[in-house]
Amino acid sequence: MEPKRVIILGASGYTGAELVRLIAGHPGLRIAALGAERKAGLTMAEVFPHLRHLDLPALQKTDDIDFAAADLVFCALPHGTSQAVVQALPETVKIIDLSAGFRLRDPAVYARWYGPHLAPELQAGAVYGLTEFYRDAIRGARLVAGTGCNAATGLYAVLPPLRAGVIDPDEIVIDLKTGSSGAGRTATEALIHAEVADSTRAYKVAQHRHLAEFDQEFSAAAGREVKVTFTPHLVPQNRGILATVYVRGAADAIHDALARAYAAEPFLHVLPMGDIPATAHVRGSAFVHVGVVADRRPGRTMIFAALDNLAKGSAAQAIHNANLMLGLPETLGLGAAPLYP
Amino acid sequence: MEPKRVIILGASGYTGAELVRLIAGHPGLRIAALGAERKAGLTMAEVFPHLRHLDLPALQKTDDIDFAAADLVFCALPHGTSQAVVQALPETVKIIDLSAGFRLRDPAVYARWYGPHLAPELQAGAVYGLTEFYRDAIRGARLVAGTGCNAATGLYAVLPPLRAGVIDPDEIVIDLKTGSSGAGRTATEALIHAEVADSTRAYKVAQHRHLAEFDQEFSAAAGREVKVTFTPHLVPQNRGILATVYVRGAADAIHDALARAYAAEPFLHVLPMGDIPATAHVRGSAFVHVGVVADRRPGRTMIFAALDNLAKGSAAQAIHNANLMLGLPETLGLGAAPLYP
Amino acid sequence: MEPKRVIILGASGYTGAELVRLIAGHPGLRIAALGAERKAGLTMAEVFPHLRHLDLPALQKTDDIDFAAADLVFCALPHGTSQAVVQALPETVKIIDLSAGFRLRDPAVYARWYGPHLAPELQAGAVYGLTEFYRDAIRGARLVAGTGCNAATGLYAVLPPLRAGVIDPDEIVIDLKTGSSGAGRTATEALIHAEVADSTRAYKVAQHRHLAEFDQEFSAAAGREVKVTFTPHLVPQNRGILATVYVRGAADAIHDALARAYAAEPFLHVLPMGDIPATAHVRGSAFVHVGVVADRRPGRTMIFAALDNLAKGSAAQAIHNANLMLGLPETLGLGAAPLYP
Amino acid sequence: MEPKRVIILGASGYTGAELVRLIAGHPGLRIAALGAERKAGLTMAEVFPHLRHLDLPALQKTDDIDFAAADLVFCALPHGTSQAVVQALPETVKIIDLSAGFRLRDPAVYARWYGPHLAPELQAGAVYGLTEFYRDAIRGARLVAGTGCNAATGLYAVLPPLRAGVIDPDEIVIDLKTGSSGAGRTATEALIHAEVADSTRAYKVAQHRHLAEFDQEFSAAAGREVKVTFTPHLVPQNRGILATVYVRGAADAIHDALARAYAAEPFLHVLPMGDIPATAHVRGSAFVHVGVVADRRPGRTMIFAALDNLAKGSAAQAIHNANLMLGLPETLGLGAAPLYP
Repeated sequence: MEPKRVIILGASGYTGAELVRLIAGHPGLRIAALGAERKAGLTMAEVFPHLRHLDLPALQKTDDIDFAAADLVFCALPHGTSQAVVQALPETVKIIDLSAGFRLRDPAVYARWYGPHLAPELQAGAVYGLTEFYRDAIRGARLVAGTGCNAATGLYAVLPPLRAGVIDPDEIVIDLKTGSSGAGRTATEALIHAEVADSTRAYKVAQHRHLAEFDQEFSAAAGREVKVTFTPHLVPQNRGILATVYVRGAADAIHDALARAYAAEPFLHVLPMGDIPATAHVRGSAFVHVGVVADRRPGRTMIFAALDNLAKGSAAQAIHNANLMLGLPETLGLGAAPLYP
Repeated sequence: MEPKRVIILGASGYTGAELVRLIAGHPGLRIAALGAERKAGLTMAEVFPHLRHLDLPALQKTDDIDFAAADLVFCALPHGTSQAVVQALPETVKIIDLSAGFRLRDPAVYARWYGPHLAPELQAGAVYGLTEFYRDAIRGARLVAGTGCNAATGLYAVLPPLRAGVIDPDEIVIDLKTGSSGAGRTATEALIHAEVADSTRAYKVAQHRHLAEFDQEFSAAAGREVKVTFTPHLVPQNRGILATVYVRGAADAIHDALARAYAAEPFLHVLPMGDIPATAHVRGSAFVHVGVVADRRPGRTMIFAALDNLAKGSAAQAIHNANLMLGLPETLGLGAAPLYP
Repeated sequence: MEPKRVIILGASGYTGAELVRLIAGHPGLRIAALGAERKAGLTMAEVFPHLRHLDLPALQKTDDIDFAAADLVFCALPHGTSQAVVQALPETVKIIDLSAGFRLRDPAVYARWYGPHLAPELQAGAVYGLTEFYRDAIRGARLVAGTGCNAATGLYAVLPPLRAGVIDPDEIVIDLKTGSSGAGRTATEALIHAEVADSTRAYKVAQHRHLAEFDQEFSAAAGREVKVTFTPHLVPQNRGILATVYVRGAADAIHDALARAYAAEPFLHVLPMGDIPATAHVRGSAFVHVGVVADRRPGRTMIFAALDNLAKGSAAQAIHNANLMLGLPETLGLGAAPLYP
Repeated sequence: MEPKRVIILGASGYTGAELVRLIAGHPGLRIAALGAERKAGLTMAEVFPHLRHLDLPALQKTDDIDFAAADLVFCALPHGTSQAVVQALPETVKIIDLSAGFRLRDPAVYARWYGPHLAPELQAGAVYGLTEFYRDAIRGARLVAGTGCNAATGLYAVLPPLRAGVIDPDEIVIDLKTGSSGAGRTATEALIHAEVADSTRAYKVAQHRHLAEFDQEFSAAAGREVKVTFTPHLVPQNRGILATVYVRGAADAIHDALARAYAAEPFLHVLPMGDIPATAHVRGSAFVHVGVVADRRPGRTMIFAALDNLAKGSAAQAIHNANLMLGLPETLGLGAAPLYP
């Protein structure tokens, strides 16, 4: 079978590069064009020397790309830009948008967290890209919105026990630790090496935009409004997110709910009761490790979920969704083992 | 005034070396002897080349040390060893024990977490070394027990609002992130660089021994039994602990309680409401930064405390206590600014 | 075609785990057994949780393994052990030994650097596993000796210009920087995280055993005795080796020699003149990046080579050689792009 | 004695913050004003929270600072800016400029590496600030130029044996590894955490501007033109520089020359023959560790020097020089032990 032709917009960012890395080993996809505004004209090897061995098209401005030739576009642009660009794409292409541009089903909610929605008419048809929970809708969608990487980590830990009714929806605390690549390849003082290395700090406490995704998905799962507490921390590592979730409910029931929900999932691994995941154990991969530990206080439980923010939290999720949208075997190109150490 | 003569037992570990580092800049203390069993006979420069510039006694076995000549002994040995060694010290010396050997006032509780107490008769006179909360007792004590470094971090965040009655004692969750030096200079597979770097993981979830200190101190402060949830994480950095504490109570009242409790404290800094500490901001110092952020859900608040595990969490605390016990100005030798970046 | 059956001895070390990781994505190889002495009886998921998703045999003692069923054995044991184990393997299996056990063609030289050779009769038939330079011999060999990872890095930088006669064989200085995983998964004080992080130091200066490999290979290439200066450094990172090689010769001629030598090589990339490789650009991959920069002093040139010590420096090299020995397409299973960042 | 009043320009950079950190513990200096253009109006605690405990003047624009009240100005501005600012300072103040603005005695050489010199008339009176080699001139100078941090590291390793005539001036190769803080607190893509962490790379090979300092100082020391080979590398750590210097000469004679040159120096430590320094052993301090190892090839030797780029390589050097210029005891405020680990 002829590989499907895909285009990556925003190829000069980390998510773009991660898409290229994964697609390079994917037998069912072929990169037809790479978009990047400021770095248009450069080769990918100049922007990302680790991709030097690949035969790739040079970076182009979006306006110069022929989208007609593509089956699917991965759009890894900032959310504002993304909405406008997606709107202009021909009807013939499918789209996976990796920004926050289409994640929130209610444009009014979007407006509250991000500002005016520029493509509300497209929002109605967009599917939230948390593959394991929206698989069927994704399969039939034209436009899929990649999830926030922090949001995905928390959702994987909490959705099954929440759906199963074995935890208290009003008592969910998500303490999350994330590596620096989640902030993208953007030069800001707070992200330079000497500021991040050998330090841990919280950021955007009680106001991180991924709260909007938690609210949307947890409320939908519980059939009522659910508002969680969420505190992200920056830890001195490149990749990886660990969510430590404090819930009310019996550890056994929670472990059961997770084990059942993910039993047939190719990328979700629920560890034996009491085992604890580490971010390095999923580095660079599409896998998620989920652990459950009972607190010493009865009725309280900690759920841990670890994933790689650029892979499962972003690019690998997008490719998983693309496989579904394009009718390919859903795990195609995604089985590579994590890189350890 | 003649400097006081101190002896450090366990000088070949990180805490021992940190004591030497800080005492080297302390005008009121002089190191009379350094103890280390396995490395006895070596010079300190051989064991810790960063101390090469100092004129220090060579390492000796405990049995070879003349304790009569000392005013105070810092005992940085493992907890079992420590109890036996402390018991054998002459009555004339004061002791700061940095192990867990004398932290728990009830020997039965000690036995539950650590095994049989070898010096229960000394325990009765031991004072828990959280300086800001036991200052007067420390001043008059012969034996002071240094706190656990994780315990200290959580206690600094929680004790003032708990004492002030502005948080719910039954709803305290301490999510803690700590650097690798807290585990000591001990060769174990789980601590080698390639296992720790670029990864975050929880450990000893719901069973860490510092829970015993939390129980003891929080219950004493609240006048009733208090059991917290506590999850320590290992983050890929050398020094620093950040405690993120989830509590029930009004952020303003909590911030007030902290600000009042620490208003006159030389090393405790309560940040402006909403500011968040980073471990790097206290690296290598006796300072603690405490921050308070209101959750978006009314009545819920996050308290953050950051300190350096080897300095304020261990050696600087010990010296602070030594200053009190020896009648020296209490901040003497401890004012050095953190090392950043 | 039926995949070839391979056995990995020393599967509980980093090299063993890296072999498993790469073979998991290799369509022509199937793991028939995994050996590990101390950890025999454990599952691979218990020893290396990042491999949890794979269906793997449990770890076995070497004595319990049925070697008759295997086409090839990867032996990732310490060099002394390795020689005895390899000697005992049935004649029917091919062997890639990743220790130093069979790297030195002259047993007398081996004895000088490592002690008595326990299998000198096998040494005669062993081929040095630097694939690009011994491809034909490897294809026909029963026993191939994987190179030292430091040695490989230096050899890739130097062999082509040395063979081409465009550098002075008496003026070669190799300054090498390596990550901590090269030291293996062994608990030693000098390798714990707090000792390695945020520090750079040299080690085994002028006495590193990989000097023996340099001597052997450079002398063979030059047709006369060549002794280089070699200084390895430990840098605070998990993976990656960068060799900075100072040579006498014209940069253009050196670049030409490298470009010609590696023109048809699938994994060797010579960067444009003046470009400089970074270890992160080859992380986790079989690729080597080689750069050449002219010094400001005419006739002096710096050659840089970067590779991943566990992948191209060890396990990927071994699989490359296994492909040749087993008659498989030589790049099979080795094309995955580096993980960046 | 009344402390001397000093002003720090460029206080919002890492060097500025390091000056503040060290001066905070210096009994003979008092900070009269802090200058910073873009961040004027902010408090130091807002720009550098680790200095929160100090009572410091707020940041001011240079134009708003009253220099008449100062004894000495530390100027930590970029080199172009620096020359203009220094020119405008009142004759009554002494100046330590930490940029490259006044390091090169010949304005023509300066022009070649940095562009036109804006204050050539001041250059004539400027003294190169490598304390141990220009102590007397520094004592009497009005304007001292802080050295490059890389340059200082190489100079400490090489100057004594070069002066002693025990190494060949034409065969000096300096391979240098430096942490990320040396690049300053400037947001550039190449310096963000994910680009630097877990990677080693060379930069500005054969063209780094510190070559000009090497040329100047080595030529002066040798009494003839000396041009070295110099390759700086960025390693993933915050602080610390290790210079590995390859020279021709007998290790014993070189070790002797170093030991003699530094015998009376308070901050220079020559390790026993064969010992190798690590950057962590001098972290945050004014100390330099120098090691010598004989190559296996007779007549070739490796010299190692380790220092902290922000401390001894910049701010501690500046304070050392300020002590000399202001008639204070020269080690005042500089004796703090390194922070390890």
